[in-house]
Formats: sequence, structure tokens, C-alpha cells
Amino acid sequence: MPTFQFLPFLAVLGTLGFLCVVFTGFWSQHWRGGFAWDGSAKMFNWHPLFMVTGMLVLYGAAVLVYRVPSSWVGPKLPWKLLHAALTLAAFVLVVLGLVAVFGFHNAQKIPNMYSLHSWLGLAAVLLFSCQWLMGFATFLLPWSPAWLRIIYKPVHVFFGSTILALAMAASISGINEKLFFSLTNKTVPYTKLPPEAWFANSLGMLILVFGLLVLWALAMPAWKRPESESLEARQPLLH
Amino acid sequence: MPTFQFLPFLAVLGTLGFLCVVFTGFWSQHWRGGFAWDGSAKMFNWHPLFMVTGMLVLYGAAVLVYRVPSSWVGPKLPWKLLHAALTLAAFVLVVLGLVAVFGFHNAQKIPNMYSLHSWLGLAAVLLFSCQWLMGFATFLLPWSPAWLRIIYKPVHVFFGSTILALAMAASISGINEKLFFSLTNKTVPYTKLPPEAWFANSLGMLILVFGLLVLWALAMPAWKRPESESLEARQPLLH
Repeated sequence: MPTFQFLPFLAVLGTLGFLCVVFTGFWSQHWRGGFAWDGSAKMFNWHPLFMVTGMLVLYGAAVLVYRVPSSWVGPKLPWKLLHAALTLAAFVLVVLGLVAVFGFHNAQKIPNMYSLHSWLGLAAVLLFSCQWLMGFATFLLPWSPAWLRIIYKPVHVFFGSTILALAMAASISGINEKLFFSLTNKTVPYTKLPPEAWFANSLGMLILVFGLLVLWALAMPAWKRPESESLEARQPLLH
Repeated sequence: MPTFQFLPFLAVLGTLGFLCVVFTGFWSQHWRGGFAWDGSAKMFNWHPLFMVTGMLVLYGAAVLVYRVPSSWVGPKLPWKLLHAALTLAAFVLVVLGLVAVFGFHNAQKIPNMYSLHSWLGLAAVLLFSCQWLMGFATFLLPWSPAWLRIIYKPVHVFFGSTILALAMAASISGINEKLFFSLTNKTVPYTKLPPEAWFANSLGMLILVFGLLVLWALAMPAWKRPESESLEARQPLLH
């Protein structure tokens, strides 16, 4: 039954993820002056776009790789490589997203890392880099011992969801604070809900729905790789 | 094994929840002028305190009731009543928390319901009230049919976690925006991370850790009521 249910669900999720990226880009392009790499607010605009695309959508796709039923049969290595590649691509975007905001702050003499948003975001990125390195060293390097894979797997799975939840909280608080920064026009402030506020608030809700559906799909017992196969999967596969 | 693991975990969680409430109260008392019910900013201060206590800590306690191993044996009705009572107490605090913020806004002529924080919070509260009413009508009223309990139970469980996740996102974005509103002193703004900012940012991280641990405990298969008993539990118990 999950075979028939998961793939349509994934299609819905893919559509929502795509909308998250398009909405984030449209917000910056239509209301915030578009994109540039020049230390101005246009450079900042890459920050939400890269973070939503990398830390939420690509990351969400990467964590669901092992829920695709066809990954449960045959060699696991291609799926591991796909998981590693998607998370690596997400990580590259996240680093670019950090460069965009630090570059903008430094050029404008705005302090870094003071808000709760920035603390949550940095916690997510630091955990994400540890997660990638530990995952690579444990599950891809052929000489990593089987006992390490067995011990580390539940930890890796737990932090997979935790990092996504941190990224969601960081995105929501980031959108909220960006609207307070930007919508300061005396005639149409944030408090009067101009179209931009409606749009970006809806983007925040959309991001939350997308992230919760990914977390829910991860937690669904019926969509998890059957245990008997996962035992075999704990063996080194590169040698 | 979960019998021995869950209760110490619950003790840690209880300590964290208690700290969330104490930190929220201390923040308002020490830096934001304390509490009053007079339409001033002191009235607003009840809002975070009631919301963190009700929508996160009491709610977190309520959703974990069925994870206590002794709830798996013997009559289920006392545990159902405890779950209903804790969620009702949480809901009363949430309503008081809403009255506090709307009362403050109306007295100060500040618009309501414009920020992403307020949208998320209202979504959480609306879903919470539907959840309580549906739970009462389905699982406590003795004349509700068994087929309804069977169909609705996974929906109730799913929204139980979803509402908590919404409450976490609302809390984080609320603390973040409150700091931007309050720390506007030109000599020590939020950007310079005064002690209040350190303290409230840490509170935000603490709330996130507490909420994630509750969500994780809910998702742990070993801590769920065994299925054979839950079948029997779907029977009406009040007649």
C-alpha cells in the first residue's frame, strides 16, 4: 500500500517545494529590488532564496530518498550516493546563503549573529555540516566498521529531522523579521498588511506546511525501509 | 526497556519545561516591567507567559500522557480524563494569553493579526480548539461509534504533533519580534546583544529543544502504547 501512496505524496510535496522556491524568488524580485552580488540589499536577497532552496527543499528531497520504495531492493549504494549528493548540493547553497547575508551585513556595517533567527540558523548549519561529515565517514567510507554504522544510524536519523525543524524555525523567524525591517513605509506599514505582507506571510505558512509534511513522511512507519533489509544495508557497500 | 527509559526522560523534560516557564516569567519581570492587567505593556507580558505555559509546557505534558507505561494497563478512562483535563487547562491559558495581547493592542491602538507570528499562533489556537472538541466528542462521549474512533485516531495523533510544531514556530518568531520591538535603545540595541538579548535568545533555543524532545518522544515507536491494547482502547469506555 505505501508503494502506491508514497509517490503521489512525493509529487504533491515536490509541487509545494517548488512553490516555496518560486514564492521566495518572486518576493525578492517583485518587492525587494531583485538580485545582485554587490553588498547591497539586493545581495541580501540571495540569502532567503538560497536558504529556502538548500536548507528546506533540496534537504527535504534528500532526506526522503530512502522512503522511495524502489530504494528498498537492489544495491543501496546508488541511493546513498544520491542522498550524499543532494545533501552536498543543499550544503553548498546554504554556504552561499551565509556568504550573501554576511557580505551584505559587512558592507552595510550591520552586526552579525545577534538575533534569535541567526542563532537558530547557525545551529542548523553547524549541525548540518557535522551530520554530512559523520554520514560520509560512517556510511560511505568502505572501511568504517559495521558496529559504528549500527550505533550511529539512529543518531543520524534523529538529527536529520531535528536539523529540518531548526531550519523551519529559522525560516519562519527570518521571514517575520525581514518584514519588520522592510515594511517601514509610514503610509503602508507591515501593520496594515500590504500585498507584500500577505504574500510573505503566506510564504511562511507554505514553508511550514512543506516542512511538516516532510517530517510527517519521515516518521510514517509504513514508509520506512523494512528492518530486515536495513540490517543488510548496514554492511559496507563500497568494497 | 522503554519502561525504564521513559520516566527519567520525562523527568528531564519536566525540568526543561519548568525552566521554559521560569525563564519566560523572569524575562518579563526583570527586563520588561513585570505584570499587570491594565492595557499597558505589562498586560502584554502575560501573553508570552500564558502561551509558553499553556501551548507548550502543559500541552507537551498532555500529549505524553499515553506514553506513560502504566497507562497501558488497566482502565484507560482515567488517562483519557487526565489528557482532556491537561489540554483543557492549556486551552484556558491560551485564551487568557490571547486576551492579554488583544487587550494590550486595543488599548494602545496597535493593529491585530498582521505579522507571520500572529498568523502561525492563530492557526495553532484554531486547530487546537477543533482538536479538543473533536477529541472530546469522539473519544469521551460514550455514544460515539467505534468506527469513528478508529478513523479519527490517526488524524488526532497527527494534528497533536502538528499543533505543537506550529506553537513552537509561533513562540520562536514571537520572541524574535518582541526583541526587535523592545531593544531599541540607541546605546544598547538588540544588535549589540545586551544581557536581555542573550537571555531571551537562549529562552528561544530552550523552547525549541523542549518542543523537539516532546515531538521525538511522540514519534518513538518503542514508547507507543502497544497496538493490541489500543484496539481494545478504541471501545467506548464511559458506558
